[in-house]
Amino acid sequence: MPDRKTSKKPVLIFMGSENDHEVMREAVLILEQFAVPCEMRVSSAHRSPKRTIALAEKAARQGTKIIIAGAGAAAHLAGVIAAHTTLPVIGVPLDSSPLKGLDALLSTLQMPAGVPVATMAVGKAGARNAAILAIEILALHDARLRAKLARYKKKLAQSVEQKERLLRKSANKSD
Amino acid sequence: MPDRKTSKKPVLIFMGSENDHEVMREAVLILEQFAVPCEMRVSSAHRSPKRTIALAEKAARQGTKIIIAGAGAAAHLAGVIAAHTTLPVIGVPLDSSPLKGLDALLSTLQMPAGVPVATMAVGKAGARNAAILAIEILALHDARLRAKLARYKKKLAQSVEQKERLLRKSANKSD
Amino acid sequence: MPDRKTSKKPVLIFMGSENDHEVMREAVLILEQFAVPCEMRVSSAHRSPKRTIALAEKAARQGTKIIIAGAGAAAHLAGVIAAHTTLPVIGVPLDSSPLKGLDALLSTLQMPAGVPVATMAVGKAGARNAAILAIEILALHDARLRAKLARYKKKLAQSVEQKERLLRKSANKSD
Amino acid sequence: MPDRKTSKKPVLIFMGSENDHEVMREAVLILEQFAVPCEMRVSSAHRSPKRTIALAEKAARQGTKIIIAGAGAAAHLAGVIAAHTTLPVIGVPLDSSPLKGLDALLSTLQMPAGVPVATMAVGKAGARNAAILAIEILALHDARLRAKLARYKKKLAQSVEQKERLLRKSANKSD
Amino acid sequence: MPDRKTSKKPVLIFMGSENDHEVMREAVLILEQFAVPCEMRVSSAHRSPKRTIALAEKAARQGTKIIIAGAGAAAHLAGVIAAHTTLPVIGVPLDSSPLKGLDALLSTLQMPAGVPVATMAVGKAGARNAAILAIEILALHDARLRAKLARYKKKLAQSVEQKERLLRKSANKSD
Amino acid sequence: MPDRKTSKKPVLIFMGSENDHEVMREAVLILEQFAVPCEMRVSSAHRSPKRTIALAEKAARQGTKIIIAGAGAAAHLAGVIAAHTTLPVIGVPLDSSPLKGLDALLSTLQMPAGVPVATMAVGKAGARNAAILAIEILALHDARLRAKLARYKKKLAQSVEQKERLLRKSANKSD
Amino acid sequence: MPDRKTSKKPVLIFMGSENDHEVMREAVLILEQFAVPCEMRVSSAHRSPKRTIALAEKAARQGTKIIIAGAGAAAHLAGVIAAHTTLPVIGVPLDSSPLKGLDALLSTLQMPAGVPVATMAVGKAGARNAAILAIEILALHDARLRAKLARYKKKLAQSVEQKERLLRKSANKSD
Amino acid sequence: MPDRKTSKKPVLIFMGSENDHEVMREAVLILEQFAVPCEMRVSSAHRSPKRTIALAEKAARQGTKIIIAGAGAAAHLAGVIAAHTTLPVIGVPLDSSPLKGLDALLSTLQMPAGVPVATMAVGKAGARNAAILAIEILALHDARLRAKLARYKKKLAQSVEQKERLLRKSANKSD
Repeated sequence: MPDRKTSKKPVLIFMGSENDHEVMREAVLILEQFAVPCEMRVSSAHRSPKRTIALAEKAARQGTKIIIAGAGAAAHLAGVIAAHTTLPVIGVPLDSSPLKGLDALLSTLQMPAGVPVATMAVGKAGARNAAILAIEILALHDARLRAKLARYKKKLAQSVEQKERLLRKSANKSD
Repeated sequence: MPDRKTSKKPVLIFMGSENDHEVMREAVLILEQFAVPCEMRVSSAHRSPKRTIALAEKAARQGTKIIIAGAGAAAHLAGVIAAHTTLPVIGVPLDSSPLKGLDALLSTLQMPAGVPVATMAVGKAGARNAAILAIEILALHDARLRAKLARYKKKLAQSVEQKERLLRKSANKSD
Repeated sequence: MPDRKTSKKPVLIFMGSENDHEVMREAVLILEQFAVPCEMRVSSAHRSPKRTIALAEKAARQGTKIIIAGAGAAAHLAGVIAAHTTLPVIGVPLDSSPLKGLDALLSTLQMPAGVPVATMAVGKAGARNAAILAIEILALHDARLRAKLARYKKKLAQSVEQKERLLRKSANKSD
Repeated sequence: MPDRKTSKKPVLIFMGSENDHEVMREAVLILEQFAVPCEMRVSSAHRSPKRTIALAEKAARQGTKIIIAGAGAAAHLAGVIAAHTTLPVIGVPLDSSPLKGLDALLSTLQMPAGVPVATMAVGKAGARNAAILAIEILALHDARLRAKLARYKKKLAQSVEQKERLLRKSANKSD
Repeated sequence: MPDRKTSKKPVLIFMGSENDHEVMREAVLILEQFAVPCEMRVSSAHRSPKRTIALAEKAARQGTKIIIAGAGAAAHLAGVIAAHTTLPVIGVPLDSSPLKGLDALLSTLQMPAGVPVATMAVGKAGARNAAILAIEILALHDARLRAKLARYKKKLAQSVEQKERLLRKSANKSD
Repeated sequence: MPDRKTSKKPVLIFMGSENDHEVMREAVLILEQFAVPCEMRVSSAHRSPKRTIALAEKAARQGTKIIIAGAGAAAHLAGVIAAHTTLPVIGVPLDSSPLKGLDALLSTLQMPAGVPVATMAVGKAGARNAAILAIEILALHDARLRAKLARYKKKLAQSVEQKERLLRKSANKSD
Repeated sequence: MPDRKTSKKPVLIFMGSENDHEVMREAVLILEQFAVPCEMRVSSAHRSPKRTIALAEKAARQGTKIIIAGAGAAAHLAGVIAAHTTLPVIGVPLDSSPLKGLDALLSTLQMPAGVPVATMAVGKAGARNAAILAIEILALHDARLRAKLARYKKKLAQSVEQKERLLRKSANKSD
Repeated sequence: MPDRKTSKKPVLIFMGSENDHEVMREAVLILEQFAVPCEMRVSSAHRSPKRTIALAEKAARQGTKIIIAGAGAAAHLAGVIAAHTTLPVIGVPLDSSPLKGLDALLSTLQMPAGVPVATMAVGKAGARNAAILAIEILALHDARLRAKLARYKKKLAQSVEQKERLLRKSANKSD
């Protein structure tokens, strides 16, 4: 596995369908914010299985460190990828069937012993957190990312306080 | 695809773990009752993915007509097989996690358009019905199987009546 | 049972209500794409039970090979039909109650041993897959259908790749 | 429909399998307590459908006033009976699959408009209440039953008080 | 209890909130169609409990034969009424919380032994069926209602056939 | 309302059935540990409704400050009590049906606006927490109880640490 | 802990995000109606944990008597606050993820023994009831609030009756 | 953050209660198998919150790279830890309430954007996979671990094949 410095794109993002793009780009936006390069692929566990497996298998050789996979319904995508790599795989269950994501959640999460998928919340919150988790992993060996993460965490807290101030102002005005 | 007459084993039964054998042999027992040869394989979608795919891909060439796959938890087995064959795939969700089979049910059933899995009930009833469905499919071109199925169906009804008689007798006795 | 060649309509599609038509015609469109003739009937397990049973019972004699049944809520339609035929019955649970199809799913799937219903995903994906499964079954004895299925499967994979290219283009443009 | 006085057995109890007898006899015991004659039949909606329908159709002619039907899993029994009679049908969902009766509950309850099933709680409480509801219906035109029901209701309340006394005694003893 | 002939309004319909009126009037419309008089009351098990109980207790004395109660969320209305009467009580769970009626369904259905509530499907189908069940009960001693029910059942079946014809016509046109 | 000092039993504990005693006595044990007197009553919302209401209505007059109510299935007990008092009512859903307490949970929790029930976790943890919550409320005006609560909270934390030490010791021994 | 009379704001309302304001202000409106001062804070258990804990820890010292906390998804807010105070904590689960509040409900309710959260219904009904419960607790030592609560309860019942009258009028008009 | 080579214990395992030890030691056993040192702590998010936070906050400084947290019911442990560190946090939901782990699953998984928890399957499979995921992350910068992981993955597949052979043998014997 090449060193991270020589690898251009440490994060590889899969989605099972082009319809999942609106949700999964939330992950891309977070990674861009941290200047972590990523590549996005549309590939289905069921409709294009060979390509999915091929992409999963060569990921480590091409310098990928972490794979994120978002899929809905019988969401096998993350699990199938995890079966063909020893890279950490992060799964994002999507709400794309009448069952509101419960199917995707259980299909992604309930992996058998030996083949983990790091499962995130259903939908956009999960897509964003997949990116944060990837950054947390990369930051274990990247002091600059660690510093950025610390700032990000501080801003999260500050943003909550700021929104409280805005809310109070508007509440006072509406009195 | 070879003609059924020359094929020794038209039904191929997969299970994701040897622990699933107790349930999946219910399918074997039904097939034996109808004298339909079958072969049983233990192969996991996640722990032995390459072998699972290889077995799925060569099934049609070896005369298999129908594949039955039983798995629990994030039950991807039937779906992964269906992704690598155009044979009919029958899925049996198993109750092998604290979530009582709801996870296996949704993981097996909620397949995306283009890659169907004929899903059965959770557990032993599902394993038996997978065999019956396979026989119904084979019977479409096998008059002897059709006759057997008709007899089986008649016996199902007779057995209900017979059990009613036994129940009434024992109910009378206990008066 | 007449030979498939003499039978004009090997697939019979039931729906429990005319409101289910929008979903169930997805199955018709797939069958038309494969030039597999089908007939569509509106008949309810509960509101027109005698007619449903009569249609189910005579299906085999009229050359039907596979029955597809879509219904919502306490979706008994596929199960009632399966009780009156030995043809393979494919069930499509529909999302037509406040419970979002979970009721239809369990009512269709959890059949007792002896009377299988090949259950598909809830809604349109399920309706499409019911047609594909029917075609997979018919293809067991129809080399032309087998060839079409192989092409269909290839196109599924190609379509995923193509959509990836379009997505990347539009992603680049929006940069 | 014959008058209740000439009818020997105003209540007809169906169960889908002899395994359901342990639960459904709770209904019989309650009916015996109120001296309301009943008949018990084992008949499945799926395994012996014709007999089930025949029994349902002739029930009204034979003096049955109320039908109780207990079944598990894809519990179609009450709904199928309701489709073939205009007598009131009471459904008891049974806990006989890994899904703990949720499947039977939704399959029994979610009937389409026009064909009601009066659904009771899952299991023994439901079986007992099916008998009470049947008695409440019969009591609408039977002053003696109304008096018995009033006494039963009083005893329910007294029994709660009595059990409180026993509990307090034993609690005091254990101090 | 007065004889039905002297009673003007054999059916009493409760709803827990005026917001439930849109759904519960479906029951009224069916009862009007069968010329069965009914009275509608808005009364909550929790917000106006004394009045609810008073209405429930005097219902039998005022000639009510059957009580229908529709409520959402922690739907105690039907159960509370059933605790204060020996008339048959029919419960309609309503979809009025984020949990989509699952809360109302379980709160209405899972009554303890001794105090049954005849539970219907969630929402409008349930409201309609509550009326039909009430009519089925009244018809046990009313030959004219029995005849109307038989016609209603026949029309249900005919309406399904008619809708099939319309669907086929419009399907042919769109070809 | 009498002052707490003159009231002997500020906490009144209801359970819907004597079978619930094993769980609800967990609340009693906690209250005894804090020397808060309580009274226990068995009274059902459905089987002894008048008595339940009478007890609820007179509770405030008799010096009760907080009511705890534990019930299973369609657990209306806490809600019915809350409808007849303005004292704080704490509900404990019990796991006493095949649905594992989900029915009791939703029946207790989903109260309409205006009539709150402070709902606790399902089962023994919930019964214990009902007692703690009652103590927290009483402690608002009782400095000694506040001090005891502070010690209890400290001990909770210490107990966790102690158990860690024991675990580590036994883990070392088993090496 | 200061006496309530000297404390300006006995109720402290937390929400996990400014997006929860629309629901949580329902609690504020009820408290204002009862002239109970409250303070509102936006603070997240996960994004601003230190501030949340600091606010929780100093609440009692600043005269807060009751804390209300509303949060969605993995709703840890009420539980985290309860871990850092011995004041009564009321939790309001919010419907802010695809899982419709079921996640927030279970995350808020299922607290371990020792650390209770008084959980309310999902959404606006829950927010209103959190305020009523807080008032019920404060009323235990405030005769004026007790009188107000009694009036409020009476008005709840009257409002139901009034709405019935309006409904009947408009029903008559539409005849 | 110290380099991994100097750090003795890169993995820190939390459990919320000593009762969780039986499940969480599955993670320890896997880590031992890979010779990855770990430390185990019993600390509750609710009962010993300060200590939990203190341990979480100092983890990074002490050389911890990955935190695993197992908890049941309202399983806030992983989320609370994640709120106080930027290390990757892996959550294992445990089945320790009547709701069978569904509560722990949703409480662990549905984290808000910004604070991810890498959630594993419920119970022992999840505990084992937490260890594997931790190893996959450490292996990104540890060639020896990568080689071990590759061997582990190969053995997983071989073990499946071996179990198939044993199953076939015993199946043949039992003929």
